[in-house]
Amino acid sequence: VSHALPAVWVNGERQPGDGRHVSARDRGLTLADGLFETMRGHGGTVFRLERHLARLTGGLRALEIPVPPRLEAWVRAAIDDAAPSDASVRLTVTRGIGPGGLAPPVDVRPTVLVAVGALPQYSPATYERGLGAHIATGRRNERSGTAGLKTLAYTDAVAGFLEARRAGADDALFLDTEGHCSEASSSNLFVWTGGLLVTPPLSCAALPGITRAAVLELAAALGIPAAERPFGTEELAGADEAFLTSSLRGLAPLVRVGGRPIGDGGPGPVTRGIMASYRDLVARECRRP
Amino acid sequence: VSHALPAVWVNGERQPGDGRHVSARDRGLTLADGLFETMRGHGGTVFRLERHLARLTGGLRALEIPVPPRLEAWVRAAIDDAAPSDASVRLTVTRGIGPGGLAPPVDVRPTVLVAVGALPQYSPATYERGLGAHIATGRRNERSGTAGLKTLAYTDAVAGFLEARRAGADDALFLDTEGHCSEASSSNLFVWTGGLLVTPPLSCAALPGITRAAVLELAAALGIPAAERPFGTEELAGADEAFLTSSLRGLAPLVRVGGRPIGDGGPGPVTRGIMASYRDLVARECRRP
Repeated sequence: VSHALPAVWVNGERQPGDGRHVSARDRGLTLADGLFETMRGHGGTVFRLERHLARLTGGLRALEIPVPPRLEAWVRAAIDDAAPSDASVRLTVTRGIGPGGLAPPVDVRPTVLVAVGALPQYSPATYERGLGAHIATGRRNERSGTAGLKTLAYTDAVAGFLEARRAGADDALFLDTEGHCSEASSSNLFVWTGGLLVTPPLSCAALPGITRAAVLELAAALGIPAAERPFGTEELAGADEAFLTSSLRGLAPLVRVGGRPIGDGGPGPVTRGIMASYRDLVARECRRP
Repeated sequence: VSHALPAVWVNGERQPGDGRHVSARDRGLTLADGLFETMRGHGGTVFRLERHLARLTGGLRALEIPVPPRLEAWVRAAIDDAAPSDASVRLTVTRGIGPGGLAPPVDVRPTVLVAVGALPQYSPATYERGLGAHIATGRRNERSGTAGLKTLAYTDAVAGFLEARRAGADDALFLDTEGHCSEASSSNLFVWTGGLLVTPPLSCAALPGITRAAVLELAAALGIPAAERPFGTEELAGADEAFLTSSLRGLAPLVRVGGRPIGDGGPGPVTRGIMASYRDLVARECRRP
């Protein structure tokens, strides 16, 4: 039994979810020439939509893609239309159709896609027992011209994820080219070590995650000492606790790396405390007026 | 006055060129999870189609994407249909529609796109006067998990190209993370220096170009000493000649880098000789039976 896919909004127009939405000549497809945001919807609201939109428009400007004026309205229309209690909301902006080659057309008309879907089914074990990561062979490039931008170029993340799966792990953890811990395939990394909450700085090719920023805010509010500074795999392996952050999955304990336990191999008290505070924060901000 | 775009073949089905061909949920678009080949058509034939297909299928296997069985037939059908005397032929294979997140669906159905178009309008100056390159700020990552694969992830190349254009150059030249010359935004690099034709090895994040391989073959046939070895920007700046190779543009002299001339600032005799030999090779192999 197949069920209909949720609608997709293409430049503000509602289209059937199982249709075809994009030209084969769209530079988002041909060159990964675009950016996206994955957001979590809660009963008709989106957690920190304005920050997602700010990150996206910053990236569009960096790539010289004109910023479409109605992004927020189109996201809200798609959410109002789908309106599940919990949802994943993906907003994609590409440079639109191009004639071939790398030179953009003179008259760029960006393609804007909004797809609202059910939240991925994270198993309770993800949060209760935690995840194991495999150190990917491929490295993140902190010296890329698009480092820090959430571009469509996720091929390396997919390749690392597949390698991790072959190794029996839940996710891939990437190092930068100098061997510092960077991030997981689609989430940021935090470690609790020596009484300090540490996350890799953006200079280690970590994305400026919306959830990452929320955790740093929470740490400050809770009086938990926190820092952005580089660290390697030895410090990760020797950490007391670790967790991963992403907009859809939220916070998930990271309890094994390369098959070895981190700390006692289970979610630790600091991780649990920040997870609870984060859930409260989301509930507080996403209460509908 | 707009004119109709050439048709696009989607999984072997001819579709109007100005239509919508791909789902917004196709992983080629959402994650750059796919590969492509850009090939040059000559009067109904494609130069070294079998090598393009071999490179593509090798990449598909590396990314665990099932190899669609009828790639060659679909490319030939698209060429027979369009049949311009000179054409660009783009073959794209993605992992198909995914449910969101990085984990591929259990039942992967790849998307195969073939788009035949007019050859880009390269100005005669490209070949007669040569090109100037800007050294991109962003680096190519020779330690990426997908280095050497022609994936859809061209965002860095686009960003470098835009930076080069802002600097008044024709193209971007990328260094790898260790500072070796790697390649241009969508072509391989050769230098003629000290009586040796040198191109960066694949270990410097150079793509295994079909034209690159043809030039190495030609050099051997012509008795020109050639080597794949790393070199830096000083050796490039001090080279006697340089040129770029790609499937669509063929060989183009590279005569300036960072605003300074290479050699005497014009296409040199070795470059001109190999350009002529390459044209002969293409004409010989693309003669229709």
